[in-house]
Amino acid sequence: MSQTNGEYKYLGKPRPLVEGRQKVMGRAQYVSDIQLPRMLYARPLLSPYAHAKITEIDKSEAETIEGVVAVLTAEDLPTHDRVITSRTSSILAKGETLWVGQPVAVVVAESDAIATDALEMVFIDYDPLPAVVDMDEAIKPDSPQIWPHGLPKEEMDMASLHGEVVKGDEEDEKEKFNNVHAENHFSYGDLDAAWAAADVVIERSYRTNMVHQGYMEPHAAIADPDPLGDGLTLYSSTQGQHQVRSDVARQMRLPEHKVIVKPMTVGGGFGAKYGIYDPLAAAVALTVGQPVRLQLSRSEDFLSTMPAPAMRVQLKTGVTKEGKLTAMQARVFTDNGAFSFNHGGLMATLMGSTYKWDAVQISTYEIYTHKPPVGAYRAPGAPQAAFAVEGNMDAMGRELGVDRLDFRLKNAVTDGDKTGTGRPMPNNLGLRQCLEAAKAHPLWQNSKNGDGVGLAVGAWPTFMEAAEAICRVDTDGRVRVNVGSVDISGVNSSFVLVAAEILGVSPDDVDIIQDDTTGAYGPGSGGSKVAYSVSGAVRDAANQVKQQLLEAAAEEFEAAADDVVIEEGEAFVRGVPDRKVGIGQLVRKARRTAGPGPVAAEGKASPPEAGAAFAVQLVKLSIDEVTGMIKADQLVTIQDVGFALNPMMVEGQIMGGAIQSLSMGLYEAMVYDEDGQLLSGSFMDYALPRIDNSPTLDTIMIENHSPHGPFGMRGIGEPPISAAAAAVTSAILDLTGVQMQEIPVRPEALWQAINQ
Amino acid sequence: MSQTNGEYKYLGKPRPLVEGRQKVMGRAQYVSDIQLPRMLYARPLLSPYAHAKITEIDKSEAETIEGVVAVLTAEDLPTHDRVITSRTSSILAKGETLWVGQPVAVVVAESDAIATDALEMVFIDYDPLPAVVDMDEAIKPDSPQIWPHGLPKEEMDMASLHGEVVKGDEEDEKEKFNNVHAENHFSYGDLDAAWAAADVVIERSYRTNMVHQGYMEPHAAIADPDPLGDGLTLYSSTQGQHQVRSDVARQMRLPEHKVIVKPMTVGGGFGAKYGIYDPLAAAVALTVGQPVRLQLSRSEDFLSTMPAPAMRVQLKTGVTKEGKLTAMQARVFTDNGAFSFNHGGLMATLMGSTYKWDAVQISTYEIYTHKPPVGAYRAPGAPQAAFAVEGNMDAMGRELGVDRLDFRLKNAVTDGDKTGTGRPMPNNLGLRQCLEAAKAHPLWQNSKNGDGVGLAVGAWPTFMEAAEAICRVDTDGRVRVNVGSVDISGVNSSFVLVAAEILGVSPDDVDIIQDDTTGAYGPGSGGSKVAYSVSGAVRDAANQVKQQLLEAAAEEFEAAADDVVIEEGEAFVRGVPDRKVGIGQLVRKARRTAGPGPVAAEGKASPPEAGAAFAVQLVKLSIDEVTGMIKADQLVTIQDVGFALNPMMVEGQIMGGAIQSLSMGLYEAMVYDEDGQLLSGSFMDYALPRIDNSPTLDTIMIENHSPHGPFGMRGIGEPPISAAAAAVTSAILDLTGVQMQEIPVRPEALWQAINQ
Repeated sequence: MSQTNGEYKYLGKPRPLVEGRQKVMGRAQYVSDIQLPRMLYARPLLSPYAHAKITEIDKSEAETIEGVVAVLTAEDLPTHDRVITSRTSSILAKGETLWVGQPVAVVVAESDAIATDALEMVFIDYDPLPAVVDMDEAIKPDSPQIWPHGLPKEEMDMASLHGEVVKGDEEDEKEKFNNVHAENHFSYGDLDAAWAAADVVIERSYRTNMVHQGYMEPHAAIADPDPLGDGLTLYSSTQGQHQVRSDVARQMRLPEHKVIVKPMTVGGGFGAKYGIYDPLAAAVALTVGQPVRLQLSRSEDFLSTMPAPAMRVQLKTGVTKEGKLTAMQARVFTDNGAFSFNHGGLMATLMGSTYKWDAVQISTYEIYTHKPPVGAYRAPGAPQAAFAVEGNMDAMGRELGVDRLDFRLKNAVTDGDKTGTGRPMPNNLGLRQCLEAAKAHPLWQNSKNGDGVGLAVGAWPTFMEAAEAICRVDTDGRVRVNVGSVDISGVNSSFVLVAAEILGVSPDDVDIIQDDTTGAYGPGSGGSKVAYSVSGAVRDAANQVKQQLLEAAAEEFEAAADDVVIEEGEAFVRGVPDRKVGIGQLVRKARRTAGPGPVAAEGKASPPEAGAAFAVQLVKLSIDEVTGMIKADQLVTIQDVGFALNPMMVEGQIMGGAIQSLSMGLYEAMVYDEDGQLLSGSFMDYALPRIDNSPTLDTIMIENHSPHGPFGMRGIGEPPISAAAAAVTSAILDLTGVQMQEIPVRPEALWQAINQ
Repeated sequence: MSQTNGEYKYLGKPRPLVEGRQKVMGRAQYVSDIQLPRMLYARPLLSPYAHAKITEIDKSEAETIEGVVAVLTAEDLPTHDRVITSRTSSILAKGETLWVGQPVAVVVAESDAIATDALEMVFIDYDPLPAVVDMDEAIKPDSPQIWPHGLPKEEMDMASLHGEVVKGDEEDEKEKFNNVHAENHFSYGDLDAAWAAADVVIERSYRTNMVHQGYMEPHAAIADPDPLGDGLTLYSSTQGQHQVRSDVARQMRLPEHKVIVKPMTVGGGFGAKYGIYDPLAAAVALTVGQPVRLQLSRSEDFLSTMPAPAMRVQLKTGVTKEGKLTAMQARVFTDNGAFSFNHGGLMATLMGSTYKWDAVQISTYEIYTHKPPVGAYRAPGAPQAAFAVEGNMDAMGRELGVDRLDFRLKNAVTDGDKTGTGRPMPNNLGLRQCLEAAKAHPLWQNSKNGDGVGLAVGAWPTFMEAAEAICRVDTDGRVRVNVGSVDISGVNSSFVLVAAEILGVSPDDVDIIQDDTTGAYGPGSGGSKVAYSVSGAVRDAANQVKQQLLEAAAEEFEAAADDVVIEEGEAFVRGVPDRKVGIGQLVRKARRTAGPGPVAAEGKASPPEAGAAFAVQLVKLSIDEVTGMIKADQLVTIQDVGFALNPMMVEGQIMGGAIQSLSMGLYEAMVYDEDGQLLSGSFMDYALPRIDNSPTLDTIMIENHSPHGPFGMRGIGEPPISAAAAAVTSAILDLTGVQMQEIPVRPEALWQAINQ
């Protein structure tokens, strides 16, 4: 359901995915569809130990296999540093392995099958060492240190993929934990006074599990070395060709322009596809001097990529008896696995972004363990933050005996409020509208307490970046728009509407061309920033092109450009619709000698402020009290989308995100044993939701225009994953009176909690 | 030698070919370097008869060969019309063949070798018919008609590839010839009065032979059908991706945007690479539904492509005893082979473009014969026009007893004069400067009549077209420029200087990217128009980008943009060179939130007037009087280049063109026997000049700025081929007193003429 805007012909009206036919017919070009002459196939050999010394690597037997080109170890590769960022964690281990799944060697062969077979013939002697798998163990003073001499400098904050880096104070003398690579402390307000004002104080400890992004297409890259220089071209399944380029260039010590990244169709990204294996593919290809494809199997992908971290959030909140929130104090522990990553700034931002507080103090701790390095997963931290904050809201609300929804409405952030870091929120926030819509929704209206309806609020700051687009009209009237962004969420199906709307052509006559890194610049597809940033550049380019067409038509008709109208790809003078000229014909004429020239323009955009977005999610559950099995019956997402450029795409994004969030609440976890072995490393063991355990989905798009988003839009990809996991435990609490403090809620845990 | 301009740092200074290393190392990407998955190989089966009825085609045996996918004839292909333009003459013959070499069938196989073998197993029954091979026979009233029912409509004028179409009056009741598909009549001035004023009248008939463009790389194309739609992508060895696109789209009845042409590195074009075999490759690929490569052998290329036509020019000119030219009357007969083409407008333009005449009357006749269709060859018509006009100039000069050079100087065109069609010439003509430079040249100065020095003047109107370019700066300071033109002559090596000069970076830091037909629009590489048209677009885009950089730097330095200077890729405030910021860094900063955005711009150009160019060529010959063997000792080209953007490229172009022209005068001819069989169909028989029969080359670039050419430049690729062939016969006349009226001058013909 969309509240579309009557002023537009195409914008705001649902239209199917532009590449839908391609994808359905198996013709979209994924990395594995690329065949390069002389291409070789690489497979990584992964560590079977969470922590071990590598005492010997014997390649000799593998190297004798027919078709094996090389067996490479860290010493053989031209990488600049073994580790610089988590994103380059695929670079081979040297001397020691730090998690089960860390790449130790690479076999390069003439076929994927030969490479796979040869993996078993590379003999590596390991000397196993004690592994620290659990983050609560890792932070203890007597725990072995994962990086006793420190990790090579790591500057990446989670938020940097999404927008600006948010950092708090780094010093905290009071408490020191072991294996913490970064701590940040955020606060504002008079905490003592806020606690003093509180009548009810709730303190809880929430635990979330490591979850995998669960994309369909495992990581894949082809690196094709430039035979003349030291550069290379990468064909990558990536959300951000420019980020991949930077990582690879830095690892290979190449100027950035010597790395050309061609972003291919992405079979699911969800934050994980910023190029984990690209530097390794590049290093291998430059070493063997031939194109190399490196495509993971599902099992390799589970073991060696960058899932979302497990977190523990200790949260204490206070509220007056009138239901006004006073103080929030939190400690967030994040299990980063073997390399550093940082969700701290985002967690602090998110935890304080939904409600007004008098005072906030949040400390975040980034912890090493002998597990795979973690990374971004759609709205990183948002489900975890909502799980904790909404859990305390529910608990406080029950203690006060107030209506859950009214309690939230009373404290909801509005313009001028701060995020959890103390920074100001953007303008024209839509949380109140979302809550009002939830209140009016039949599921809420027709339910009473105890019916098993959960309610949770999620926030996502959304981000933005400068972007560029080229727009051209061809001689047959075809419109082409080049962008520098990757479509992982249907954005191209919105861009066609932007161009079509402005130019007065059918969206069927618009192509979006995704440039490689030598072309248009655009942001990576993360942080819900792509449509928000790139739509403006498309609009700018299309507006310039439209002006060129109007002027060409004006000359043709001997009229003023202001009097010319373009509809359905034909120009005419307002009021004289009988005499029409196709825009392709105008393009031909513009190219005449001494004419204005080809009809084309470069457009730019750089939004000055984000369009923060909220989602309110309602979940209706039923529970089998004998087994603890939980069944989600209905999932409602009410989201402030600002303005839905293409409501069909937005609705699809909301549904997908909502299901992923629900699944975090009910199903998904990467489970490790005490030795750091992954127990849920396949889709047989790792529980993704399927159609038979998915609820009815309901989507309400609130169109509360964002001041700086093109056409009033907001970033929409991440908010829908924020709150449903929290709504699950809210519903369980509503149904059973038991507040579960770990997600996913496993049936046996629920059964035990109920029967305690 | 170049008269470079001191005001530029890079422009006007010689710099080597940007892709030189690629080419020398064998890494430039030609069509044959492209390997597509499931690609098939096609070979054409060519008619062995100049004229025959096809009575039966038996494919059955060929189709049984292992690896043969299909044997296709005209009936099998989805082409719209068998023939529309000469450029699509590769489309298979239907029922009848019209020249030796006309494609009759195509074998498609899994390898090129299998396809070649299978050609011999396709059995075609021909019923030979009378062939009309000679154009003088063809025009006779009783000659069989080549197209008794007319050719499918043909709209192409030679000049349309190069610029605007020039047409004269089409009616001429006085004289009708057989097998003429087009005649045009151009005239101005009072012819009767002009003849009456003449004291000396010379009438000659000049004959030129059919010559092949002699490129290194035979025609090649790969057509890759879009598996979802009815479109396709073509990888083509072409000078003009947009022309190929139009031809293929029209033949396949596709909208133009459904045909994407990727122009590859061209191994020599010289006017012949506008896509002769692309429509056939496209039709075959769409029929078999797989990618198909069609690459000709040298022999197939000689038999079935589009050489330059043989011509016969009947020329009568008059001059007063004071040496003032009065009247020119000409009939130009052009042997177009089996399809229509039209050099008429160009011939008329050219014949009257070097000297002032009181009155001109030129009639041109385009004639069909049973020979391959003809096409463009570098400055089409210019060598033929100069051969005739300069021949008469020499004859008149000798009759009058005047100095050849002074005679030409006295009558040389200047601003305000007309071409042979009566149209006005462009402004600031440089012929006089060229002649003055020739007069001052040591070869002229140190020779006396009878020394065997030939002199001839050539003209080329040059053309222009609208063009587009995108310019971007990357974060490491790399500059990229996208253009829509093909580099067959070193233009990219000039464009890098344009961008580098404007932006203040080293030319080594500039890449030129040649877009396919979905990208920047540019003219085809013909008519000496590419650098003239596209340089302006590059300049426009680079100027906009420079402004963006200056503004970013101004903000950085808190200075005015006008005070910022960029040198060697670094910006600084004028007078404060100690504080510098790299332009890559400025790009990073411009992309910041709420900043101006990516540093990039779209540029356009559409020159309003051509920059007509002249060449004066001097040839010094020696002749072995016993055998008639001619040895060219020295070849001097003096050319008005306007301004040499990159003198090394311009000099290379001049040398290449001069040698080709000399070779037309001395060596090259496609010789056919009376049955239309090509006798010189390989490089064993077709005499291209080699280093051991090439003279010393001397190049003088006159830099007489063109009013509308970027930086004062003129188109330079074609003028150097215009006059040397004529200078050969001029030198022979000077040495022997014999005026040869056919080129190439064969030794036996010369011996006979001398000994007559």
